[in-house]
Amino acid sequence: MEQVEIREVGLRDGLQGVATFMPTAAKQQWCDVELAAGVTEIEVSSLVSPKLLPQFADADEMVRHGLSRPGLIVAVLIPNVRGAERGIALGVHKLNYVLSVSEGHNLSNVRRSTAESVEDFRRIVALCRAQPAGQRPILVAGLATSFGCSIEGAVSEDRVRALAAELADVGADELMLADTVGFANPPQVRRIVTAVRHEVEPMKVAAHFHDTRGLGIANVQAALEVGVRAFDASLAGLGGCPFAPGATGNVVTEDVVFLCEANGFCTGVDIGRLIEARAILARELPEVALLGNLAKAGLPKGFARLAA
Amino acid sequence: MEQVEIREVGLRDGLQGVATFMPTAAKQQWCDVELAAGVTEIEVSSLVSPKLLPQFADADEMVRHGLSRPGLIVAVLIPNVRGAERGIALGVHKLNYVLSVSEGHNLSNVRRSTAESVEDFRRIVALCRAQPAGQRPILVAGLATSFGCSIEGAVSEDRVRALAAELADVGADELMLADTVGFANPPQVRRIVTAVRHEVEPMKVAAHFHDTRGLGIANVQAALEVGVRAFDASLAGLGGCPFAPGATGNVVTEDVVFLCEANGFCTGVDIGRLIEARAILARELPEVALLGNLAKAGLPKGFARLAA
Repeated sequence: MEQVEIREVGLRDGLQGVATFMPTAAKQQWCDVELAAGVTEIEVSSLVSPKLLPQFADADEMVRHGLSRPGLIVAVLIPNVRGAERGIALGVHKLNYVLSVSEGHNLSNVRRSTAESVEDFRRIVALCRAQPAGQRPILVAGLATSFGCSIEGAVSEDRVRALAAELADVGADELMLADTVGFANPPQVRRIVTAVRHEVEPMKVAAHFHDTRGLGIANVQAALEVGVRAFDASLAGLGGCPFAPGATGNVVTEDVVFLCEANGFCTGVDIGRLIEARAILARELPEVALLGNLAKAGLPKGFARLAA
Repeated sequence: MEQVEIREVGLRDGLQGVATFMPTAAKQQWCDVELAAGVTEIEVSSLVSPKLLPQFADADEMVRHGLSRPGLIVAVLIPNVRGAERGIALGVHKLNYVLSVSEGHNLSNVRRSTAESVEDFRRIVALCRAQPAGQRPILVAGLATSFGCSIEGAVSEDRVRALAAELADVGADELMLADTVGFANPPQVRRIVTAVRHEVEPMKVAAHFHDTRGLGIANVQAALEVGVRAFDASLAGLGGCPFAPGATGNVVTEDVVFLCEANGFCTGVDIGRLIEARAILARELPEVALLGNLAKAGLPKGFARLAA
């Protein structure tokens, strides 16, 4: 059976828009429960300035906790070169650097042009390559607004393809195409993913969808059909981009796992145990709506559950 | 541009599980606003006994109202021969007769075997054919639990195909495959729809999905890809089957329209006006959760809206 990687991003993308500081012990429990359920890659925090996002003031502790758990790939978001230096010093396994295909979104998000962000990425590549082989993190280039932008509207598909090629050429180990503001639809996903994969193969191309307009899971399906085998998702659909008004969050991890398993892929995730992790969110973030229909309805009767 | 038919079933499937009687004038307003938005087929009520479902005590008035609206195809659900007689007497355009592929579900739902329900359908066909040509309603055979059953679990795909063939042979004008309990997934939808269409083409095969486990819209996409051009949906996702515990309702009409238009099909529906109809539900059914993400987030910036 072919594998699909499920990467939990709720601890970063999910919590990013949550004003209440989630206690570090609860975040670590969330991490542990998901790992026990079979989710082996978790973006545990964001290495931004805690002045900007106090939710991530405990990033170092989160990384150290993650690194103490055998079998877990510990990823962090990095906004810039300083974040990369910090991540490398902490010994994380994976650095997720994100820039926006849309100039307008990149300016709003990180106050520089996309080209300037590519130059920063070049410096991050150099920094990673300067590390001794065993201490070199996997470097991911994430292309935000790959499927449209709430500021600019449509984003040129050719620009996505060209930027993906450039980032691969500069030295990304892996790419991630993100529908940051929930504009994507299935035919578009097929077109853009196919074009990008064709450009960079055999490099891994992951996908990151939001369910802002109800098409999140259909977009995961479309990406599966054109060969994507790694998806970001957020427990209970936590999250949403600050620049996407009224945005529903990331696609729901539980539902994505269910979809992948229903398609005959092996995720290694025990859906029942994964659903149990929602109790942590319910307890710690009572003001936040927990999304996802599978958790309410349960697995279909007779659905073949795969061992973690 | 190829057309896709969107059929509103909220007034029947949506209201079926709602205990509060929605005033007839509000139901009629709902009907009118959707028609004005471009939804030209509406299942306006169910011709069951009002003792069983008091929500449908005003079925005759709903039908008469619908028939007074030029351009609207007025459909009703009929549970049995008596319902068919009543529908014909009222002059409805379309009779939706539903039986379950799963014996267990059919027994729970209408207290007879699937074979007995097929015999009832045969009598309904005879009744319709006995009408003068201009007064003969379109007769739809709906196959509930085509994608799985909350009582029996998996449903044999071969049984779905064979039953579809039998109903077509008996005299259905159109088939409707329903994921009554929200068990369907995209690869299964492609398999079953393809098998059924192959068996009965060129007969129209419509699909009816519930979003019980988060895959509703992905299932619509899968059905679109294998040639389905008619979908049932419910405004704000109202509804759910009484035999599907914890069931989320039908797929959300707004989101289905958005998906179809994003795929390049013409639905003839003005999404903005359709979303306005939600206000009627908010006003009349304040206790009911209005689902659907598109209504919260709005259309993507730059999305090409098609004229109704």
